[in-house]
Amino acid sequence: MATTAVAGMELLRRGRVDTRGLPLAGAKDVGLTEYAALTFGGWDLFEEDLEKAARNHAVLTDSQMEAVAPVLRGMRPWPAASNAKFCKNVVGTATKKTRGLREQVQAIREDLTRFKKEQGLERVVVVNLASTEKSVDLTRPEFATPEAFEKALDANDADIGPAMLYAYAAIVDGVPFANFTPSVAADVPALMELARRTGAPIAGKDGKTGQTLLKTVLAPALRDRALHVEGWYSTNILGNRDGEALNDPASKQNKLDTKGAALDSILGYKVQDHIVQIQYYRPRGDNKEAWDNIDVTGFLGQPMQIKLNFLCKDSILAAPLVVELARTLDLAKRRGEGGVIDALGCFFKAPMSPDGQPVEHAMAEQQRRLMTWLSKGRTRQAEHPPERLRG
Amino acid sequence: MATTAVAGMELLRRGRVDTRGLPLAGAKDVGLTEYAALTFGGWDLFEEDLEKAARNHAVLTDSQMEAVAPVLRGMRPWPAASNAKFCKNVVGTATKKTRGLREQVQAIREDLTRFKKEQGLERVVVVNLASTEKSVDLTRPEFATPEAFEKALDANDADIGPAMLYAYAAIVDGVPFANFTPSVAADVPALMELARRTGAPIAGKDGKTGQTLLKTVLAPALRDRALHVEGWYSTNILGNRDGEALNDPASKQNKLDTKGAALDSILGYKVQDHIVQIQYYRPRGDNKEAWDNIDVTGFLGQPMQIKLNFLCKDSILAAPLVVELARTLDLAKRRGEGGVIDALGCFFKAPMSPDGQPVEHAMAEQQRRLMTWLSKGRTRQAEHPPERLRG
Amino acid sequence: MATTAVAGMELLRRGRVDTRGLPLAGAKDVGLTEYAALTFGGWDLFEEDLEKAARNHAVLTDSQMEAVAPVLRGMRPWPAASNAKFCKNVVGTATKKTRGLREQVQAIREDLTRFKKEQGLERVVVVNLASTEKSVDLTRPEFATPEAFEKALDANDADIGPAMLYAYAAIVDGVPFANFTPSVAADVPALMELARRTGAPIAGKDGKTGQTLLKTVLAPALRDRALHVEGWYSTNILGNRDGEALNDPASKQNKLDTKGAALDSILGYKVQDHIVQIQYYRPRGDNKEAWDNIDVTGFLGQPMQIKLNFLCKDSILAAPLVVELARTLDLAKRRGEGGVIDALGCFFKAPMSPDGQPVEHAMAEQQRRLMTWLSKGRTRQAEHPPERLRG
Amino acid sequence: MATTAVAGMELLRRGRVDTRGLPLAGAKDVGLTEYAALTFGGWDLFEEDLEKAARNHAVLTDSQMEAVAPVLRGMRPWPAASNAKFCKNVVGTATKKTRGLREQVQAIREDLTRFKKEQGLERVVVVNLASTEKSVDLTRPEFATPEAFEKALDANDADIGPAMLYAYAAIVDGVPFANFTPSVAADVPALMELARRTGAPIAGKDGKTGQTLLKTVLAPALRDRALHVEGWYSTNILGNRDGEALNDPASKQNKLDTKGAALDSILGYKVQDHIVQIQYYRPRGDNKEAWDNIDVTGFLGQPMQIKLNFLCKDSILAAPLVVELARTLDLAKRRGEGGVIDALGCFFKAPMSPDGQPVEHAMAEQQRRLMTWLSKGRTRQAEHPPERLRG
Repeated sequence: MATTAVAGMELLRRGRVDTRGLPLAGAKDVGLTEYAALTFGGWDLFEEDLEKAARNHAVLTDSQMEAVAPVLRGMRPWPAASNAKFCKNVVGTATKKTRGLREQVQAIREDLTRFKKEQGLERVVVVNLASTEKSVDLTRPEFATPEAFEKALDANDADIGPAMLYAYAAIVDGVPFANFTPSVAADVPALMELARRTGAPIAGKDGKTGQTLLKTVLAPALRDRALHVEGWYSTNILGNRDGEALNDPASKQNKLDTKGAALDSILGYKVQDHIVQIQYYRPRGDNKEAWDNIDVTGFLGQPMQIKLNFLCKDSILAAPLVVELARTLDLAKRRGEGGVIDALGCFFKAPMSPDGQPVEHAMAEQQRRLMTWLSKGRTRQAEHPPERLRG
Repeated sequence: MATTAVAGMELLRRGRVDTRGLPLAGAKDVGLTEYAALTFGGWDLFEEDLEKAARNHAVLTDSQMEAVAPVLRGMRPWPAASNAKFCKNVVGTATKKTRGLREQVQAIREDLTRFKKEQGLERVVVVNLASTEKSVDLTRPEFATPEAFEKALDANDADIGPAMLYAYAAIVDGVPFANFTPSVAADVPALMELARRTGAPIAGKDGKTGQTLLKTVLAPALRDRALHVEGWYSTNILGNRDGEALNDPASKQNKLDTKGAALDSILGYKVQDHIVQIQYYRPRGDNKEAWDNIDVTGFLGQPMQIKLNFLCKDSILAAPLVVELARTLDLAKRRGEGGVIDALGCFFKAPMSPDGQPVEHAMAEQQRRLMTWLSKGRTRQAEHPPERLRG
Repeated sequence: MATTAVAGMELLRRGRVDTRGLPLAGAKDVGLTEYAALTFGGWDLFEEDLEKAARNHAVLTDSQMEAVAPVLRGMRPWPAASNAKFCKNVVGTATKKTRGLREQVQAIREDLTRFKKEQGLERVVVVNLASTEKSVDLTRPEFATPEAFEKALDANDADIGPAMLYAYAAIVDGVPFANFTPSVAADVPALMELARRTGAPIAGKDGKTGQTLLKTVLAPALRDRALHVEGWYSTNILGNRDGEALNDPASKQNKLDTKGAALDSILGYKVQDHIVQIQYYRPRGDNKEAWDNIDVTGFLGQPMQIKLNFLCKDSILAAPLVVELARTLDLAKRRGEGGVIDALGCFFKAPMSPDGQPVEHAMAEQQRRLMTWLSKGRTRQAEHPPERLRG
Repeated sequence: MATTAVAGMELLRRGRVDTRGLPLAGAKDVGLTEYAALTFGGWDLFEEDLEKAARNHAVLTDSQMEAVAPVLRGMRPWPAASNAKFCKNVVGTATKKTRGLREQVQAIREDLTRFKKEQGLERVVVVNLASTEKSVDLTRPEFATPEAFEKALDANDADIGPAMLYAYAAIVDGVPFANFTPSVAADVPALMELARRTGAPIAGKDGKTGQTLLKTVLAPALRDRALHVEGWYSTNILGNRDGEALNDPASKQNKLDTKGAALDSILGYKVQDHIVQIQYYRPRGDNKEAWDNIDVTGFLGQPMQIKLNFLCKDSILAAPLVVELARTLDLAKRRGEGGVIDALGCFFKAPMSPDGQPVEHAMAEQQRRLMTWLSKGRTRQAEHPPERLRG
């Protein structure tokens, strides 16, 4: 979806598409960087250039593809940090030839510095879009404080996966960081605290695009009408690389965990039969499909059913959120806000919250908070800062 | 659904059902009358007693039916005002034997007075639950002021239908009035102004139960994600008496009109292909079913689809709203609030608004406003006032 | 869909597509004309060439379009016979400048003769693909015998619509004729008898493509399992020119009539609530969507539901049937079979049957009959005869 | 579902229900035993009487329950043969206190003899309705011939599960046997041969009730229209004891295997993405729900989708098939037909076929064969023979 974001911004710049699908296109005069001012770069496990990636991905129409092919052709990702133990089913060839964690962190920081310099950028933002990693135990003392974390880094701790490395590399330099995946990245106390200290705005995790979006839209209404949710069965079929990654049970469980919490949190009770399935299904490619069946009981204990069928496109829903995260985190940085930016909760399946505050999952309320946060900047004027994204 | 409300409150009083499905069951300490303190009475075109109505309706389970049959058996509606020109497909036998509009109004007011006295009630609330009437031209000068309206009454104006008569009869005595149907009732300038003068809280119109509820839940999220709605096709199948009434094209059009406005209002643009169909379909009885297909375009102009299938029960969704309307309007009356109570918008497909203010249709925002309005009374304590409903 | 058929056969000839979707591609050695040997020509109310039609239609992919554009560019339909009284919502500009019915018939026959000569064809087949006309009374004496019909032609009878004219013009010369629309064409006793006399194989009517296809697939199984159909609610949304034509209530009723009979015929009883709706809905273009809800009761009178959602493409389903009709009718002609060919019932919503014999609607049984009929020719060898179609 | 069958036949006898849902109710004069002449008995792992089972099951309506409760109250199953290694998640308390396989077989045969005598029955039929067992290797030499099988019995072979024991016990005495479950029972060469020798008609396996029924109805039509199936995603949610049994992965796999073969067999090619999921989901109880998404490509390689949603009732669909199996197998016995009765294929997900003949899965063709087979007996007259079923 990084490719889709890059291609989309290029098509927008050329007037080939409008701002449809970009949630904050209508948020004027609040200081957000213009879409046209964004510059992209990033890492990948696969060294194919973006044109090739876009053609494989088959998200663009033929004529959109032809319009941006020359630009994408020149863009090639940088070799990525990777760890087969964290994400089994996606094994790339373009991995960093480094040995220790510290070296990897150093390499990432140097990539960023070089990129800024080469492109003449003022500021950067890092967004994690890599495939889902396996879960780790977040309560380990190594993840409790910045100091403990850095010692664990020195010791090449086996629980520090690639997503965490990128998070650390950004945060330590005060660079804004968003985690668009279910992997563990900045969502440990150590890195949240570090972000506060360095003034790095952070947000995450797991982009809220399709089924979970609709879940957090519908559930508040069921609560408001006092319709009791007896069961919620959600199944997904998808056929892109993300789907393949989820064929690894460890990655899948991590994904399912971030999808599960929202419902109970909104309803205020534990739904006894909340089942979420994700199934790799080749014929669809990037065209995801979700089917939900919701069993509720209402007045007089009478049962009713809601069924929801979402034929969506993964990258088309995700790419605009990635772009808006870059713009909002950059705005936070310029406003001097560091640590978890909880006004960005509407973008995530499992929003981070500072200091263990309760998390808001209801979409409409999240949106209201985002609008309120944005409007604080309505007086200031944006100064076209370039951006970068990691794919 | 009046029968369902009566039976349901009786079952609740006996501990046979819980408060599931009652939206404000959790709103404690805000001064709402207790459910157990409500007393019901009402008019109908059919003189069968409520037990018979409930058995025909087939909404209660067998064991619920047996539990309340003795109570319902004794309850018989009063003969209703009716006008075949306003609702063609429902012709009852139990109509008031009066000639002029003034006489009908007088008969309604006397019914209320008698009911209060017989039951020893402090206060009453009138809710219109009759079948949908045909539409009338709301801009006629006769509907502009209370004075013009009363002259029209004297002249037995052909555009004053039964729903308006009940509204007038309640409002003129300062009695709270809600219109749960798409018919024209208190939603003319004349009666809104009269309500302000007499201190009658009013609300309407057309209970928001199934498909439109979900529409006003989903549409704000589509707007917030900047997904452009290309078309929204909604179809409904239902097999109860309401469905039969809608086989009259005039009544149906009126219904469709109140269903149509919400979507464009929430999205902020006119959806080119917004189609709503309602189809009488016998096999379902009271079990309504809605199917929606929504075509949206997102980032890069790419099309996606959402399909929504709601297997619901008309009375089960509607009866609790009727009960809550009685409780909230009664609360408004005790608080001294007259005229349109716009905090009650979440209960209606086409909420009335005072003085032409823009109407909020988004469900989550409506709910927030209701909660805010209710919390204003959190200091005061409710004094168990009895209620009555019209069915 | 004529354009889709022409383009598809051209793409097949060039090896750009395979025979997928062509029902009789696997029927070898039965004497059917090869796909590659077909030549197309036809009439239309609109004079745009086929390239333009195909681009408007937007059925082909971009690369398929480019591959056949040069061929389609040269092909322009001939001016058509038309009658605004028979099809209100489709008014073309390219109509024949003739006055009487006899003149129109003559013009059609001359078009066919000229076409055969120009293209060097041995044989032709005429298929009616025009928009749906209004219904006429089939029991009029004018439609009872060939002689009465010809007198009505002479008298310019107002009930003889364009579809009938084309049917007569083909049949009178012994040319095979198929009616792919719900319009009245050869399905009157007069023309069926004429076809027997002239040896013209005929078939119709109304191509069985989407919803009705599935209905005739499912219904036999419900019958075989003794599941009683209480109601069957079918709704369709479609956005192409056919959909627009159906906005004319007279055309729509005709369409609905041909869709209605199959169900009761298969089940052996009248389904009390069989409702079929067709709705013009712009966002879909040629991509039709059908939603069916079926209420059945089974053992112990227990209710169950089946819901069916078909996201299909009108032309993609129809064009192959048109091609196969041309091939099978041509085969019938060569075999010396005239009159109604009832083995072709699987292609139609309302199959014609000779001499009032009962019509078989169950898809599997229809298919079995087609296969049996085809296998009768397995000994003979096909001699590559060219064909033509009317669009 | 045994309980549903027993209760249903009793309700039918009393005229409380009609023959709706019984597939062969209309098959008159073919020699089938009357429904009213059937007598039921059987084994279960749970010793509760049938009234209790029926109340837990909650399939009957309240008034149906009251009508048959007195009859069911008296009926208690006999202790069953069981083996925890074959079906992990269903552990009953009412198991036979026997040690070796031979002893268990003997006990089963004695149960049947005693039952016939007590009830004064002429003939019995055994139908396996137990929960799904794990799979075993059918190619082992022990399963190849009756002689080898009997030696394995003597040796208490660990691969001989309860379903096989019941099958053997019936077949060895020439008693008709049907396997309504996916377990391995009579479907090994040894028992098929034995059945031929003893003249025991046998049939199986795995009752074709919901999703697979529709699959074998739809797939032939897709084949006949040459629509290529790219993927077929099937998911099921169900909440009864069968659902719980399938929470054991070994039982589930066995179930999925019998569901998988039909599709490829009908289409004539391997569907690359045919996925079947079964999910235990408590809120539904016996009310199963299936959702299918089918991706097909048609003419010009264009993709289309069919979605199927079946809200069914497991026992309501299954019980009538069990009854019809008893009646048809009994008919076969009286006609002198032994071994696999392949005309009964329409009742099964994975029909057995004699001597490795190809299996027909297409529902309409199976039905045709059943009708043909039945009509062979149209001349003979049935002599009211009592029956018995195993639950």
